Amino acid sequence: MSLLVVGSVAFDAVETPFGKCEKMLGGSTSHFSIAASFYTDVRIVGVVGGDFSEAEQKVFDSHKIDTTDLERIPDGKTFFWRGRYDYDLNVAHTLDTQLNVFADFKPKLSDESKKARLVFLGNIQPDLQREVREQVPDAELVALDTMNLWIEIARESLLRTIKAVDVVIINDAEVRQLTSIPNLIKAARTVLSWGPKALIVKRGEYGAALFTPENYFAIPAYPLESVFDPTGAGDTFAGGFMGYLSSQEALNEAAMRRAMIFGSVMASFNVEEFGTARVRRLTHEEINTRFRAFKQMTHFEEIPFIRVAT
Amino acid sequence: MSLLVVGSVAFDAVETPFGKCEKMLGGSTSHFSIAASFYTDVRIVGVVGGDFSEAEQKVFDSHKIDTTDLERIPDGKTFFWRGRYDYDLNVAHTLDTQLNVFADFKPKLSDESKKARLVFLGNIQPDLQREVREQVPDAELVALDTMNLWIEIARESLLRTIKAVDVVIINDAEVRQLTSIPNLIKAARTVLSWGPKALIVKRGEYGAALFTPENYFAIPAYPLESVFDPTGAGDTFAGGFMGYLSSQEALNEAAMRRAMIFGSVMASFNVEEFGTARVRRLTHEEINTRFRAFKQMTHFEEIPFIRVAT
Repeated sequence: MSLLVVGSVAFDAVETPFGKCEKMLGGSTSHFSIAASFYTDVRIVGVVGGDFSEAEQKVFDSHKIDTTDLERIPDGKTFFWRGRYDYDLNVAHTLDTQLNVFADFKPKLSDESKKARLVFLGNIQPDLQREVREQVPDAELVALDTMNLWIEIARESLLRTIKAVDVVIINDAEVRQLTSIPNLIKAARTVLSWGPKALIVKRGEYGAALFTPENYFAIPAYPLESVFDPTGAGDTFAGGFMGYLSSQEALNEAAMRRAMIFGSVMASFNVEEFGTARVRRLTHEEINTRFRAFKQMTHFEEIPFIRVAT
Repeated sequence: MSLLVVGSVAFDAVETPFGKCEKMLGGSTSHFSIAASFYTDVRIVGVVGGDFSEAEQKVFDSHKIDTTDLERIPDGKTFFWRGRYDYDLNVAHTLDTQLNVFADFKPKLSDESKKARLVFLGNIQPDLQREVREQVPDAELVALDTMNLWIEIARESLLRTIKAVDVVIINDAEVRQLTSIPNLIKAARTVLSWGPKALIVKRGEYGAALFTPENYFAIPAYPLESVFDPTGAGDTFAGGFMGYLSSQEALNEAAMRRAMIFGSVMASFNVEEFGTARVRRLTHEEINTRFRAFKQMTHFEEIPFIRVAT
């Protein structure tokens, strides 16, 4: 039972209306793997430079994340992103992106990684995602994330990759952009018609929705009175989702629905502090308490209306 | 057991990307009362002009809506609104508003209306809403709607009215505008601190949320692949909500949660055709089928995560 994730490991500098952090561990793979590590054994595939220190390695080690396939380029520098959020925390303003060693990233999977039961293709160039996907033919479930950039400049490749995966996990703007269909429900049906068994649409403060050919499932976001730093919320959601699924024997829709809740729970913690800080020190008790809160905030009695004659 | 609604009765002219209608029955009171009539006895308070014909009267009659307090001004004209929707159906562009007899509307309640158990103060000037509220001191539950205009030009009066009601039913932009707080959860808590027992936030395609001092309840919208005409969706939601509540003995949170679902069901039908056309010919079987669909699309098993040692 193991989960493999491929994507970026980065250093982030983030400024929000509530504070500033000059350098912290970030990137899709970091957020994803730390969240997933609460549920399953995780292996990461990525690349870092000589500035990736013992301190960052310890973060992965302390969560028993297998970094065998984390390539190190001693004379290179790790991917760096600087961003700012204003009071509308839904919008990240990118101030600086230095791809560094990530520019020439070619994912290399060890034999052990190729045996992963579940695989998450984080947001990287879709040709690379497909190369990885082809190396894990026996995986029971492969999911991918992507972004507006690839929809714009590598659409055909992205469509080929989407056809080759089981689950697509993207946000609502991306679903609309990908399909050029404004109605989300119709857009989602279109994505499913391309092949994936499930589409998960992340809607930020409005929650998330799971589309399958037969069904629709939608959940609200956990109600937070303050969001401190939204960086990595989407990857943390995906990490909770895939991590929980990886812990389950049956990868059916009932498991996916619960996985959506665990994903949302992890994301709700992620935004409470800078970077991965809050998720790193989570306990299973905290996670389960918030899981139960989701049940409480979505429950209603199924009593159809019967009109009593007057 | 009866429900009273005060607000506008109007003629609407609507253009959407899918069609055009030059004159149809509209206004908050019409949408509200027709939706509510599926659940309870409804009385309306409003004003119409000489152009309000037998055909419109028949719509109310056929739903057993009591129009005793619907004032008629034979030499006046009924409130008229003309609007257009582009492909973003969330935004109504007002092309023309003729208040006509509605400009001097003074709600007049008969003795029978003053005995209503539940009262909905539709979107009218907040001083008028408060005048009505004062005439129904024994009502078990009074709810109100409002709009951005009153928040801008009659804020103090609106706040006094909000303090005097039990339930506020508005959209998310209005909650933020009313409180000047961008975070919806914090904004909602602020509205509740002014006195109401419950705040319902309508979020359009994202669903709706119920805030009470103790709890939070959120539901998605019914997933529609096409929205034909969103006019009146909010009032139809309120009509389903208040109508269902009016049918219940206990006006507690469990009943309010189910009422949210019935409100959403009615709103989902409303947007499928022009004006009130779709809702007018609904059956209870159709309503209950969609009610059950809400259960299906929000249900997940409450199984906390237990990490098995490996």
